[in-house]
Amino acid sequence: MNILIPGASGMLGRKLAARLVADNALHGRPIEKLTLVDARTAQPPDISAPRVEVLTADLADPATGQAAIAGRPGVIFHLAAVVSGEAELDFDKGMRANFNGSRALLEAIRAAGGDYRPRFVFTSSIAVFGAPFPNAIADDFFLTPLTSYGAQKAMTELLLADYTRRGFVDGVGIRLPNIAVRPGKPNKAASGFFSSIIREPLNGEEAVLPVDDSVVQWHASPRAAVGFLLHAAGLDSKTLGPRINLNMPGVACTVGEQIAALRRIAGDGVAARIRRVPDPLIARMVAGWPTRFAPQRASALGFEAESSFDEIIRIHVEDELGGRTVF
Amino acid sequence: MNILIPGASGMLGRKLAARLVADNALHGRPIEKLTLVDARTAQPPDISAPRVEVLTADLADPATGQAAIAGRPGVIFHLAAVVSGEAELDFDKGMRANFNGSRALLEAIRAAGGDYRPRFVFTSSIAVFGAPFPNAIADDFFLTPLTSYGAQKAMTELLLADYTRRGFVDGVGIRLPNIAVRPGKPNKAASGFFSSIIREPLNGEEAVLPVDDSVVQWHASPRAAVGFLLHAAGLDSKTLGPRINLNMPGVACTVGEQIAALRRIAGDGVAARIRRVPDPLIARMVAGWPTRFAPQRASALGFEAESSFDEIIRIHVEDELGGRTVF
Repeated sequence: MNILIPGASGMLGRKLAARLVADNALHGRPIEKLTLVDARTAQPPDISAPRVEVLTADLADPATGQAAIAGRPGVIFHLAAVVSGEAELDFDKGMRANFNGSRALLEAIRAAGGDYRPRFVFTSSIAVFGAPFPNAIADDFFLTPLTSYGAQKAMTELLLADYTRRGFVDGVGIRLPNIAVRPGKPNKAASGFFSSIIREPLNGEEAVLPVDDSVVQWHASPRAAVGFLLHAAGLDSKTLGPRINLNMPGVACTVGEQIAALRRIAGDGVAARIRRVPDPLIARMVAGWPTRFAPQRASALGFEAESSFDEIIRIHVEDELGGRTVF
Repeated sequence: MNILIPGASGMLGRKLAARLVADNALHGRPIEKLTLVDARTAQPPDISAPRVEVLTADLADPATGQAAIAGRPGVIFHLAAVVSGEAELDFDKGMRANFNGSRALLEAIRAAGGDYRPRFVFTSSIAVFGAPFPNAIADDFFLTPLTSYGAQKAMTELLLADYTRRGFVDGVGIRLPNIAVRPGKPNKAASGFFSSIIREPLNGEEAVLPVDDSVVQWHASPRAAVGFLLHAAGLDSKTLGPRINLNMPGVACTVGEQIAALRRIAGDGVAARIRRVPDPLIARMVAGWPTRFAPQRASALGFEAESSFDEIIRIHVEDELGGRTVF
């Protein structure tokens, strides 16, 4: 089968591509070709088989979508996005990348016509929701984004659902929790500190915490996120029904509980590398974000995340720090 | 003040324009200019004051939005839309009219810049919701359209909310119930029979009922809908907060209860003019539509509808049939 990954240069895109190359199959079907698309140059995974094609192009340009689906990929993992902080600072850039780009790709698929109807896994976000929230956000809670990023994701979800209902594509939208611990450099996401307060101290560096210890967030590891994507690719659309956009499972915990988990795993000295520097702008943005979910449908459909933040840290240590035990 | 009505040639647009011309004021402020925009030729109301300008143009063309807001209208009543049946038959036409047109108008407002921030009343629809439903749809029920029309309305709601949050415009979205009794000729809306089973018998004509008597719908009269629009124009955005899209009040009743109301008001002979001709396509579409709401926010904000279907029929008789008492 052919697989397409728009947004392949991002953190999740690279992890997903590496996993697909390593597995060389998806749900038991061998991978013949993997097409990586990104506005930045996509880094092909190190392994030569299966055949990897790299396309550096802007998804909002209609020609990009046409070129990307030329090999009629049976599964598309659409990860291309401008992150929340950037979409808030530059409205046009966010609309172009997060909405126009997605729409152009869906239009290219519709224009292909015939019986071409790929599985289209869309990475949405819990940013489609906005405060105030109930105690736990149920699957039928309404879409009330309080960021442009969230609005663009929610609009794309609706578009994907309608394209799916009409039979133009076979869509599944997965609303990712905050992904922690993100490896590498911080990105422009306002949520970056949730990862950096774990990642930097484990690397012997100082991290800045801009919000109060009581802030609650809904987390899943990068490994779990790749698992969500792969699982979504194999879902039976008959089981899914018309409500194709799903809240993903995760771990709800406070920043204080994150720090306690870090202390349990790496000791007091590591946890002491977190410096509290309140940032009212970030605090205000975070205050509008969802906290705790009751993702019953996703759980029933077999999506799985971690069960504690300790587990999330251990996965980071295994996947990014070679299983190191001394910090 | 200047007022703009895109979609002024539709049934509600004409009623709204006539009302504004008759009042010659909105919330106590005199109307200096009324601009009517429609893809079809807009019919100016019969009265010459205030000054009425008519613009026949496609809203999806960016030049239309620029021309429409040239006089910097302080209130915009955005009613332009392709109806549900038509948007389902012609996907491109629906997207262009219902989404691209709305987006282009919002973009023209944003591009105007400065401190121009008009009140933008968007007529959305309860078609943003899709079955299955709870007993009564609460204000925080999720957006799950099962028609392209509903998806396009929901996407525009999200766009409007984000433009409002960012201060580009001062938006209010009102999700209209089914409007009954619609005067005049049937349009292409699949919901047309809810009106025609009342309107045609009162006119001495036969009406076709394509669904079962047990079908429930959420209704408000055209007079109530004009009232919603005017009320929305005067809402204080501080009271409204960021959740600007509102379920409107209405009357929940079955088709059987509609017919019973018709019988009470006009007699058995009139009610006998309804002929039952089941239409599986319409029945299937209607089965996905919302039925009963608990519109607490709209009620708290002062929106008002009728309290019975009898009242809705009486309003039709008053407003369209000159208060006739013999049928």
